[in-house]
Amino acid sequence: MAGSEIERLIELLAKLPGLGPRSARRAALHLIKRKEQLLVPLASALEEAAAHMRACHICGNLDTADPCAICADLRRERGIVCVVEEVGDLWAMERSGAFKGLYHVLGGTLSALDGIGPNDLAIAPLVARIEAGGIAEVILAMNATVDGQTTAHYVAERLAPTGVAVTRLAHGLPVGGELDYLDQGTLSAALKARRPA
Amino acid sequence: MAGSEIERLIELLAKLPGLGPRSARRAALHLIKRKEQLLVPLASALEEAAAHMRACHICGNLDTADPCAICADLRRERGIVCVVEEVGDLWAMERSGAFKGLYHVLGGTLSALDGIGPNDLAIAPLVARIEAGGIAEVILAMNATVDGQTTAHYVAERLAPTGVAVTRLAHGLPVGGELDYLDQGTLSAALKARRPA
Repeated sequence: MAGSEIERLIELLAKLPGLGPRSARRAALHLIKRKEQLLVPLASALEEAAAHMRACHICGNLDTADPCAICADLRRERGIVCVVEEVGDLWAMERSGAFKGLYHVLGGTLSALDGIGPNDLAIAPLVARIEAGGIAEVILAMNATVDGQTTAHYVAERLAPTGVAVTRLAHGLPVGGELDYLDQGTLSAALKARRPA
Repeated sequence: MAGSEIERLIELLAKLPGLGPRSARRAALHLIKRKEQLLVPLASALEEAAAHMRACHICGNLDTADPCAICADLRRERGIVCVVEEVGDLWAMERSGAFKGLYHVLGGTLSALDGIGPNDLAIAPLVARIEAGGIAEVILAMNATVDGQTTAHYVAERLAPTGVAVTRLAHGLPVGGELDYLDQGTLSAALKARRPA
């Protein structure tokens, strides 16, 4: 194998999700071959991120500013908060372009198996944020998984005393979904939530 | 989406082989969440590589030293040179532990489609290296692809006047390979190269 510097680089790259040892080796070679176009810019982008990236103290989004660009944006609907599990889910919502309100990142889901309880998530800060007033609706946008839905249920219960309107994302057919390829759960959810045509 | 620093990081990560835009986003989040364990070490490993990694002027291997650790290792068999397409192939040979000689990295294969001719590869330096003497055998270890085999054929012709012994890797069943799952080409190569049991 090559020098220990390369091995260390490969080892670190292999820790990225989606890269195994083999693809980490390919990535390392790719980087070293494209020193000026890729290796140097990536090193500096990582340094930049290490130095300046932080979690927004209001919503938990990652940004170089605190409050983050979304919380600071006065053009967004400030009376509606979308609760998501992770920052990646917030990004997905933003990519959809369908939501113009504010966010709240829980930082995960309740999970008995992994020993994650309510105090490990940003649930109390969410309740405090709602109690502080000015929010008319909370949209629970957790993943349609068992843990996600358990968490949504728990958060809804915790928010009930505040009197805020709590909604959740609809479950049903994904756009382009074909009945023949859908799982039973989705199909029965879509059937239960049927609406007048 | 998040700040432009994150977007730049994601953009760069997405250029790595094996990572698309979606997995690059996941990787970026993963990195930022594991700042001390992963982000900072990776940034410094990349900087290290950018600053110190170079191609060995003898064999083309990547290392922080020139000549590389393999060319400088006097315990290796110095009369036998294994010719490979890329540094990744050299690493694969080293991982196998089956070869104890020296290497020569061509830097690719001849390819009419991509406009890569003999002068774009380290073929002349290989011939010069053999002409300088001290090498008894050259093993052609190109990939078993059309381009790889074309290149092997061409290199063998270029080496013929030097009188050095030129061999190539055997083609046949991979270890653990089952006939039923093998492609025709491999099977017919294995049949042609059959040996007394």
